[in-house]
Amino acid sequence: MKKHNFAAGPSIISEFAKRETAAGILNLNKTGLSILEVSHRSPEFMEIMEDACNLMRDLLNVPLNYHILFLQGGASTQFAMVPMNLLHTKAAYLETGSWAKKAAKEAKLFGDVETVASSADKNYSYIPKDFTIPEDADYFHITTNNTIFGTEIKTDFDSPIPLVADASSDILSRPMDVSKYGLIYGGAQKNLGPAGVTFVIIREDILGKVERAIPTMLDYNTHIPKNSLYNTPPCVAIYASLQNMIWMKQCGGVEAIYKMNMEKADMLYSELDRSKLFHPTVTVEEDRSIMNVTFVMAPEYQDKEVDFRDFASARGMVGIKGHRSVGGFRASIYNAMPKDSVQALIDTMREFESKL
Amino acid sequence: MKKHNFAAGPSIISEFAKRETAAGILNLNKTGLSILEVSHRSPEFMEIMEDACNLMRDLLNVPLNYHILFLQGGASTQFAMVPMNLLHTKAAYLETGSWAKKAAKEAKLFGDVETVASSADKNYSYIPKDFTIPEDADYFHITTNNTIFGTEIKTDFDSPIPLVADASSDILSRPMDVSKYGLIYGGAQKNLGPAGVTFVIIREDILGKVERAIPTMLDYNTHIPKNSLYNTPPCVAIYASLQNMIWMKQCGGVEAIYKMNMEKADMLYSELDRSKLFHPTVTVEEDRSIMNVTFVMAPEYQDKEVDFRDFASARGMVGIKGHRSVGGFRASIYNAMPKDSVQALIDTMREFESKL
Repeated sequence: MKKHNFAAGPSIISEFAKRETAAGILNLNKTGLSILEVSHRSPEFMEIMEDACNLMRDLLNVPLNYHILFLQGGASTQFAMVPMNLLHTKAAYLETGSWAKKAAKEAKLFGDVETVASSADKNYSYIPKDFTIPEDADYFHITTNNTIFGTEIKTDFDSPIPLVADASSDILSRPMDVSKYGLIYGGAQKNLGPAGVTFVIIREDILGKVERAIPTMLDYNTHIPKNSLYNTPPCVAIYASLQNMIWMKQCGGVEAIYKMNMEKADMLYSELDRSKLFHPTVTVEEDRSIMNVTFVMAPEYQDKEVDFRDFASARGMVGIKGHRSVGGFRASIYNAMPKDSVQALIDTMREFESKL
Repeated sequence: MKKHNFAAGPSIISEFAKRETAAGILNLNKTGLSILEVSHRSPEFMEIMEDACNLMRDLLNVPLNYHILFLQGGASTQFAMVPMNLLHTKAAYLETGSWAKKAAKEAKLFGDVETVASSADKNYSYIPKDFTIPEDADYFHITTNNTIFGTEIKTDFDSPIPLVADASSDILSRPMDVSKYGLIYGGAQKNLGPAGVTFVIIREDILGKVERAIPTMLDYNTHIPKNSLYNTPPCVAIYASLQNMIWMKQCGGVEAIYKMNMEKADMLYSELDRSKLFHPTVTVEEDRSIMNVTFVMAPEYQDKEVDFRDFASARGMVGIKGHRSVGGFRASIYNAMPKDSVQALIDTMREFESKL
C-alpha cells in the first residue's frame, strides 16, 4: 500500500533525495567511498558543502552580504544561540505559538524580553496584526510558520531593528525577501532535508554587538570564517539536503514549488470550508499555513476522531494526528508532498463523511 | 580500484552499516517510509533509538546507573557542555594534545582550570604518567585517544573525583570499564557511526552540583528524562550508528574487535619498527594508539613525502597524510578497517622502500 506521509517533521522528502542519498552511501560519485565515511576535509566533501551553500543561496536569492551556515542542534539550539550572539540589553518576540514561546523563554536567560504581541487568547489560531516593533530592542524575533497551530506569516515585512525568523517549517516553500531579515534559521527536517542539520542565514553586520563570552561552538563567528567546517559537520544530512535542493531546482525553483504548494493548500482548505464534518482551526484565511493544515471534527462528531484516524491509516495516511495542544488532525503538506497524496486525503475524508 | 580509507574521521564504516543504511533510506523495515522522513515520535523511530541505546549499553557493559544519550554538536560542543554542567569552582585537565587543550580552553570560560600534566614538551608524543589528580577539583578530564598525535590512554584508572573522558576516537575499540568514569563523550564519526551524532554516557549522580543557568539544549538534564528525544534527533546518523553497532555485535562484540584491532596495530607498528624509511612518531610503546598510527620518513628521506603520498594514492590508499602538527603520515585503523587493508598499506610501504 502506498504511504502518504503527512507527518509534521521529520517529514516527507523527495524520492530524488532518497535515491541519491542511498546511492551516495553505497558509492559517492564513483569514488568507491561512502558519504558515511568520507573525510569532511576531502575535496569530495568540500565540494558538497560548497554546492549546498551555493544552491541554497540560489534558491532563496540570498544576497551576498549574508552567510549561509549548516550547523547542528536544531532550532532549539538556535533559541539560545540567537540571544547569546545578539541580545545586548533587550529583545522583542512575537508570540504566535509554542515554539515562539520557547524561543522567548530561552532569550530571558540572556537579557530582557518584550513580548510584543500574542495570540494566546485564542489558542494561537491567528497571527497578531497590530503591534509596534520596539526600536530600542536589539532584534525582533518571529516564527514564520507555526507547525503546531497551522498559522503562517506569509509576507516579509520591514522592521526597524534586525528581524530574526525561525523558518524551520516554511523555508523554501515560498519566495522570501531575505534582505528584510537579519537572521533566518531552522531545522532542516521539513522542507530542506532530513533531521540532523540546522541552517542559518545571517547578515554579517548584526554580529559583534554583545560583550559576553560565547562558548566557541555557539558563536556564529566561529562558523562563518570556516564555512561551517570549524568542526566535523553532519555530512550525510548535508548531502541529503543538497540532493533535496537539487530536486527543488529541477522542479523549477522556489517560485514553481510555491505555486504547487498554494494549489495543494487551496485543495485542502476548500474541502475543509465545504465539509460539515471537518472544520479548519484557523478561520482567518490570510493566516492559514500552506504547510500545516490543522482541522478538527465538528462538535457533534468529536467521538469519531479515533475512527477516522484508523480509517485514514488503513488507506495509507501517516502522521495526521493533531498535536495535543490543538487536538483533531494536522496534515503537513510540505514541498515534497505530491498533489495526488493531498487528493487521496480529501477522498478519504469524503468517503468517511459519506458513511456517517 | 579498491579504496583503503585511512582517514582520521569521518572514517571507514562497516559495509554492513552502509548497506543497511542505504536500504533504510529507500524503505525502512518495509514500512514504505524512509529513515530520512519518518517522524522521531513514530513507533518505528522510537524503537531505533531504544535499540541504539540498548546495544551501546550491551557492547560496553554500561552499568544501569549511567544514561546513554545521542546528541548533536560533536565533541567540540561537549567541550562547553561538560564544564557548563559540572564545573562549580575548579576542573583538572590532562593535556595530551590539541583536542585536550581545546577542551581545557573552553572550560576556562566557566571556572578555574588546572592543567595537571602536559606532554607538550615533546610535541605530545607520549602520555604523561606522574601526575596527581587534585581532590578539590570538580572533575578530571582526559582525552583517551589523541587522534592527531597517535597516543592513547589504554587503561581505565581510578580517580578520586569524577573522571570525564573524550573517547571520540577509541570508544568501542577496546573493552572499557565504564564504572571508572563519571562521563564519557565523543563524536560518532570514528568507530560508532557517521558524522552528525554525539554520544554521551553519564552517571547521573555527578549532575546538579552547579548553580549557573544552563541553556536548555546544553543541559544534560534536559535530554536524560526525554531519552534524547527532547528535540528532533539526527535520525539518519543514529540509524547508521545502530547498524554499525549491530555489525560490531555480529563480529563478536568489543572483545573480539579489540583482538582484531591489536593485530592490525601490531602489524603496522612492527613494520615501522623494522623499516629504515618510515619511523613511528610515538616511541614509548605502551602509549601507542591502536587507532591512529603516526609516522614520518627518516630524516635523510624527508623529501620523498609527496612521492610516497602519490605512490600510495595510486594504490588506493586514502587519507594517509599526517596532521600538520606532526607531519608525515597517519594511518587511522578504526574498527571497520580490514586487516587486508593494513596489509595493503604495509605492502605499499615496502614496495616504495625497495625502489629507493
